[in-house]
Amino acid sequence: MAGMLDAWQGRCATSAPLRFVDVNLRGAAQVMFQNHPLTGALFIAAIAWGAMAAGAGEVLAGGLLGLVTATLCAQWLRVDAEGLAAGLYGYNGLLVGLALPTFLEPTPLLWAYVLLGGAVSVVATLATAHVTRTWRVAALTFPFVLTTWLMLLAAASFAGLGAEPAPFAGQTEALPPELADPLHPGAFAVGVLYSISQVFLKADLFSALLFLAGLALASPAAAGFALGGAALAVLTAHLLGAESDLVSAGLLGFSPVLTAVALGTVFYRPGWRVAAYAALGTVFTVVAQAALNQALAPLGIPALTAPFVLCAWLFLLPQQHLQASDDAGP
Amino acid sequence: MAGMLDAWQGRCATSAPLRFVDVNLRGAAQVMFQNHPLTGALFIAAIAWGAMAAGAGEVLAGGLLGLVTATLCAQWLRVDAEGLAAGLYGYNGLLVGLALPTFLEPTPLLWAYVLLGGAVSVVATLATAHVTRTWRVAALTFPFVLTTWLMLLAAASFAGLGAEPAPFAGQTEALPPELADPLHPGAFAVGVLYSISQVFLKADLFSALLFLAGLALASPAAAGFALGGAALAVLTAHLLGAESDLVSAGLLGFSPVLTAVALGTVFYRPGWRVAAYAALGTVFTVVAQAALNQALAPLGIPALTAPFVLCAWLFLLPQQHLQASDDAGP
Amino acid sequence: MAGMLDAWQGRCATSAPLRFVDVNLRGAAQVMFQNHPLTGALFIAAIAWGAMAAGAGEVLAGGLLGLVTATLCAQWLRVDAEGLAAGLYGYNGLLVGLALPTFLEPTPLLWAYVLLGGAVSVVATLATAHVTRTWRVAALTFPFVLTTWLMLLAAASFAGLGAEPAPFAGQTEALPPELADPLHPGAFAVGVLYSISQVFLKADLFSALLFLAGLALASPAAAGFALGGAALAVLTAHLLGAESDLVSAGLLGFSPVLTAVALGTVFYRPGWRVAAYAALGTVFTVVAQAALNQALAPLGIPALTAPFVLCAWLFLLPQQHLQASDDAGP
Repeated sequence: MAGMLDAWQGRCATSAPLRFVDVNLRGAAQVMFQNHPLTGALFIAAIAWGAMAAGAGEVLAGGLLGLVTATLCAQWLRVDAEGLAAGLYGYNGLLVGLALPTFLEPTPLLWAYVLLGGAVSVVATLATAHVTRTWRVAALTFPFVLTTWLMLLAAASFAGLGAEPAPFAGQTEALPPELADPLHPGAFAVGVLYSISQVFLKADLFSALLFLAGLALASPAAAGFALGGAALAVLTAHLLGAESDLVSAGLLGFSPVLTAVALGTVFYRPGWRVAAYAALGTVFTVVAQAALNQALAPLGIPALTAPFVLCAWLFLLPQQHLQASDDAGP
Repeated sequence: MAGMLDAWQGRCATSAPLRFVDVNLRGAAQVMFQNHPLTGALFIAAIAWGAMAAGAGEVLAGGLLGLVTATLCAQWLRVDAEGLAAGLYGYNGLLVGLALPTFLEPTPLLWAYVLLGGAVSVVATLATAHVTRTWRVAALTFPFVLTTWLMLLAAASFAGLGAEPAPFAGQTEALPPELADPLHPGAFAVGVLYSISQVFLKADLFSALLFLAGLALASPAAAGFALGGAALAVLTAHLLGAESDLVSAGLLGFSPVLTAVALGTVFYRPGWRVAAYAALGTVFTVVAQAALNQALAPLGIPALTAPFVLCAWLFLLPQQHLQASDDAGP
Repeated sequence: MAGMLDAWQGRCATSAPLRFVDVNLRGAAQVMFQNHPLTGALFIAAIAWGAMAAGAGEVLAGGLLGLVTATLCAQWLRVDAEGLAAGLYGYNGLLVGLALPTFLEPTPLLWAYVLLGGAVSVVATLATAHVTRTWRVAALTFPFVLTTWLMLLAAASFAGLGAEPAPFAGQTEALPPELADPLHPGAFAVGVLYSISQVFLKADLFSALLFLAGLALASPAAAGFALGGAALAVLTAHLLGAESDLVSAGLLGFSPVLTAVALGTVFYRPGWRVAAYAALGTVFTVVAQAALNQALAPLGIPALTAPFVLCAWLFLLPQQHLQASDDAGP
């Protein structure tokens, strides 16, 4: 494993095209805070599988276009070389590129819209990181959320984008009745796995396993917190009496998954105190997810990962009271 | 008076349980920016009276539970000892605990929800204070507003909380017709006093007098600015032609009361220039209260003290242009 | 020209009333980032012409009242002398004073409301600048947007203001049918010029020419970027398939005009890289304008220049990656 990575990095050092591929792979991995090209490759494989299984090739195409556009725009803007190499300017563009074709019709103009969104995601990343650096927290996926919200809201006014936004998309098929039963163990397992794959806007079991494999490769602790966070989120949502369909489709769990990984393994050093704190943050992210779904419903736009961004900032800002890790991202 | 306080503090120094009571009493007092255990005791008496008079014992229970949970959570998070002892980590939890049973049905899950809200209010206090400290302003009641808004919005999706949020609750009885007449002196007096008791989400005359007594005990100037601010708010609302029912129920005055006390006595040194500035801020808080009521109506959540937080920050940030006091809170 | 300006400044040095006029003229010029009394005089002439042509004298009166109130309030608050002399405390008051009579009925209380808005705009300017200075960006027109949004939202609850807010006012007459044809060259030219005059909330061709003349007088580059930004905005809006009526009335272009001037000439040193960056920002401001129109429609308030503020901040915060100019405003 380590040997393969070394060999790959050796090749990248002498080849600009391979280096470009490496940066984009790491950009994909950064959606879940990892800086590892193979993790990124597995994530892209998971996205491709999920898109193909749902017959939505345009989502895969949009994601790749957004990712590459963002990387190129970051190079043009001469961002810091270290952050660029770690993929920190790519993950928001990837998510914008996945989201726009998920919620908008695949008209020709959509691809121009993805290009625009990928480029703006880099500006938004620079702007957000410049502000949040003041309190030593990362930009997280706020640039993705801001850019996508504005573009989806605007699309309703643009005939060229044939907008008809679906508030809670990602649910690619009707759930079988047993998945709507909160006490059914299958429903629980499906809800947990879909919560992980919904981070990338798709409900797909095999994709979820690929995401977990990619995570485990770079950080077994991250994979553990992702699974644990998803389980805690599904449990919390059922206890509070959330609609079973939403829970089983993973739509109340994907933000909590990110909160669990971020608080539990990335920005704080793992430990029991931090695990308890991450659990509190994960539970509250379920509340925030339901709250933002409710607040945004009149506008017809999805919450995306805004609940994660809000709760992760809330729980990361008091960093002086818990051991802060050194790896704080952009 | 001073002797009694000394005796109490002496006892607290040697008894951990009494010290815990003291911290919680000061937490209650901090809702109106005071750091005095007897003020807190009078505030809790006022809350108890208001809740009992309205037949809403669950509001009192929720408030106490939120307060104690917040204090315990702050201890667990090892917050700064000075702020903790002054009650600065308790007042948001108290308000969350008062608000949730005011706006939600008293189901069994409500109490778990209050525990969650009380704990999160501390995290939100640490996060907010970390950010606002950059410009030397206090967190005020923003942590209460944020936590409660999210929890009320989410409750509508949770069957276990039997949510049916009442946008402008606190109005516990129908007003007699003469109180709807803006020129009636009784209506004016009632509007002024209810504006004070509504800071704690209840319309009750005797509670209002207890709040004023508690304030006067710690700071006669604060009591004066509370009364003056309430009178100015009621007058402004009537002049602008606001609905008399709202004004007489104190529902356009409770945020301005807090603005008046904060600007007039807490964060700036009292004086004529500061009084004029506080008056401008108080009048504008009436506008902000009406604006946020309007903006939040489609979401079915109350404005809480958000108009106060917004206007107090607006009028506190230009601090360099007025004498800033040293006592800036969390 | 330069001689005239020197003579005027010499007179101002010895006459307090002339100095007061000078400060107010510069306040008007600062709506488009210029610090030149003659530019301000031309802007006020353009406002007067636009108001008179539309039979809306109260808009002119409101604007002047808001401007003078803001300047007086800034003097009372002892703001920094340099910023005051440059008009940096006047432009938000002018815009508040133009907006309130545009969207509210001209009742007697409206004038008290304009006085309040003019005064609060200064407090909001001090507060915003204190915060944004942390990242070396300017307050822009955020104080105007915040103050006006709150006052318009509140007006719906105040009988004394006879509120009936028109979401997208400024369109003073029905457009002739050919202007609704995106391929008609006249429609294009009108859309471009109206985009410039709508910065001051009016659709008027002669006003637009006066604004351009005022701009060119202080900065030919600014006039060029205003025209180019307006053309790019109209083009983008048509390509995306926006409603032709909105585009031709300048209602999707006024925020992009401000973004183009700000990014292209004020806060960055002009150049090809900066021009490309400003173009990206201008195009995205069209998206943001459509998005905020959509988001605010349920609240019945107009977006004002919020899309400009949002996008300009977004594109100004990454300043380290482009040459930053020294002249950063308040």
